[in-house]
Amino acid sequence: MNISRRGRDIQSSPIRKLNPYADKAKEQGIHVYHLNIGQPDIPTPQPILDAFHSFDEKVLSYGPAQGFLELRQAMADYFNSYRISLDAENVIITIGGSEAIHFSFSVVADPGDEIIIPEPFYTNYNGYASFANVRIVPLTLHVEDGFRLPPEEEIEARITAKTKAILLCSPNNPTGTVYTPEELERVISVVKKNNLFLIGDEVYKEFIYDGGTHKSILEYEEVKDRVIVVDSTSKRFSSCGARVGAVLTRNEEIHQSLLKFAQARLCPPSVEQKAALAAYRMGLEYFKPVKEEYERRRDVLCEGLGNIPGIVIHIPQGAFYLIVRLPVKDAEHFVQWMLTDFHLDKETVMVAPAQGFYCSPDRGKDEVRIAYVLKEQDLRRSIDIIKAGLDKYLSL
Amino acid sequence: MNISRRGRDIQSSPIRKLNPYADKAKEQGIHVYHLNIGQPDIPTPQPILDAFHSFDEKVLSYGPAQGFLELRQAMADYFNSYRISLDAENVIITIGGSEAIHFSFSVVADPGDEIIIPEPFYTNYNGYASFANVRIVPLTLHVEDGFRLPPEEEIEARITAKTKAILLCSPNNPTGTVYTPEELERVISVVKKNNLFLIGDEVYKEFIYDGGTHKSILEYEEVKDRVIVVDSTSKRFSSCGARVGAVLTRNEEIHQSLLKFAQARLCPPSVEQKAALAAYRMGLEYFKPVKEEYERRRDVLCEGLGNIPGIVIHIPQGAFYLIVRLPVKDAEHFVQWMLTDFHLDKETVMVAPAQGFYCSPDRGKDEVRIAYVLKEQDLRRSIDIIKAGLDKYLSL
Repeated sequence: MNISRRGRDIQSSPIRKLNPYADKAKEQGIHVYHLNIGQPDIPTPQPILDAFHSFDEKVLSYGPAQGFLELRQAMADYFNSYRISLDAENVIITIGGSEAIHFSFSVVADPGDEIIIPEPFYTNYNGYASFANVRIVPLTLHVEDGFRLPPEEEIEARITAKTKAILLCSPNNPTGTVYTPEELERVISVVKKNNLFLIGDEVYKEFIYDGGTHKSILEYEEVKDRVIVVDSTSKRFSSCGARVGAVLTRNEEIHQSLLKFAQARLCPPSVEQKAALAAYRMGLEYFKPVKEEYERRRDVLCEGLGNIPGIVIHIPQGAFYLIVRLPVKDAEHFVQWMLTDFHLDKETVMVAPAQGFYCSPDRGKDEVRIAYVLKEQDLRRSIDIIKAGLDKYLSL
Repeated sequence: MNISRRGRDIQSSPIRKLNPYADKAKEQGIHVYHLNIGQPDIPTPQPILDAFHSFDEKVLSYGPAQGFLELRQAMADYFNSYRISLDAENVIITIGGSEAIHFSFSVVADPGDEIIIPEPFYTNYNGYASFANVRIVPLTLHVEDGFRLPPEEEIEARITAKTKAILLCSPNNPTGTVYTPEELERVISVVKKNNLFLIGDEVYKEFIYDGGTHKSILEYEEVKDRVIVVDSTSKRFSSCGARVGAVLTRNEEIHQSLLKFAQARLCPPSVEQKAALAAYRMGLEYFKPVKEEYERRRDVLCEGLGNIPGIVIHIPQGAFYLIVRLPVKDAEHFVQWMLTDFHLDKETVMVAPAQGFYCSPDRGKDEVRIAYVLKEQDLRRSIDIIKAGLDKYLSL
């Protein structure tokens, strides 16, 4: 009566596993600034809340496995407005971007198959790799050059007979890097030459700074059949608790298979889909002030962290995360210590140890991921706390 | 660039795959009585709807991976009221019972491992077996004896070195059979002797007729460590679209592992959990009239079907399904024909071909599953339509 290997090996979320320490700190009256999780403090748009308030059906019933047509159409329209040719038939609504990741991994790879992913990467890819018995082959990137992709040969060197896909997340969680068209085209050349799928995680599409724009892998018609995109409304509309995402593909065989995965779990939550529909109907103007807010936060955070001796960062171009190299040996120990042994006037900060964002052993041990999801004033205070904590920790 | 084997092999839901034909019938102005899917017409209780209407947080944020403590506690209290010793620490809230199935399969079995399940069984076990690369070993039951479990030796004959668990669904979907304590104890004896896990799907716990009561496998302290129970609020509170379920276990190692699976997908929908909490707070009295309603429907349906020549049924003791053997060779063809080629005064009926509820090849080809989820009058009309359809079909 043994638990399964995957059940043993699946990682604890590095974002969440230290939560019990945070809870204990809170019990002791310490305020914890949560920069560990991508939980924005941006108010959820009123039309989303209104959709909950005005739900008026008698029976809260199952919806279609692929999601409501109106929402699929609204999402297609949203992408069309970025000159991406998609229609409702290319969209399957998922239970958060999480499920879209799980579906994408499972539809391209069987147990033992490999997916190449630049690391550090969104930590839950590790979780889903264990869950789906897929092997992630990391392509290790570095903070010093801002986590840019290596030359084509280096990417190709990771390909084996078991490689099924390359996954690109842009804007990137956890690095904030936005891949240039040239970088995307480098990877597109590799997937074409080696007959692979290309999975895109583009959930941070709207969060690109310094006047940049997002280039989606959906824009490359030449790999139309190879591309599967993971999408989510969680960050886009500050509604993480709604659990509405999508998986997008113009490969009909993949779409039909994804639909069968979707049928197994019946449907995504019904009321949330109505809420997401209301969100898309707000139009693109909604994003402007939100993006400006995050851009300001990025500036505040990067400036503040840049002034702490021994810290290495690279200013990110998008999303709302950055990877920070700390002058410590074991970042997880430091993060935990900040919760258990440190406070500055009854306040402390929680960040995420970065090791869980890598799959190469020992990578990222001296790094943390910081999510700039709190308002300017809280970020400034968090920087002061991190600085004071680090000072004390290093003097122990 | 091939789709994965599991992506190819995963079944289309037999409950949903004929939906396009139903949609076409509707386009032609034909009313379709949906007895194919367990979507009750019972109004969703007002406290659930009120929870949506009164959601007043500014940010629709992530909740804990394991679900909100208040809801986990309310569920533990619910089970306690049935003299089942559980506490909040034994409960992980899942995204519907579906996710609880997926988690349970994955935590006991690695790819290639086996789970023994009496067939016919809930069709989405097939979907999740493909998704999780687990092999279902069927224990074939029969309509003639009301789908009772076979003797211990016959169950044990299915066990191999790869067997990890036996799954029992009671009250059963799709047969409506409620296992007796003696049957449960037979299986418990087998899992103890052979060192297996015992997975219980008890989502229809509240729907037991003829004055019977539900015996849960959670009541057997001797297998406390072996038991994992799949639960759901979908049918219990007629709120299928909410996607709130749970996985219950008192095996701490299993619980910790399930928590890691849960962390990978961040959290269940937040507002829905508040709705489920409101539902549990209604107390057990809520169930009485609902159960009476289903019992009446069962009686109407069984009496009506019993009068159609050539049909074989066994009166079920619980849930709201029954498996019906039809005097046809290919039940799927008949079901589809009812949608494409038949109507009685512009009305027809959709049921679910039963083959997808089996995994033994060719089993159930002449059977359908009928869900008695519509009100008496609609059921009576549905019976007339099935009778007339069958008459015509057999005379073709």
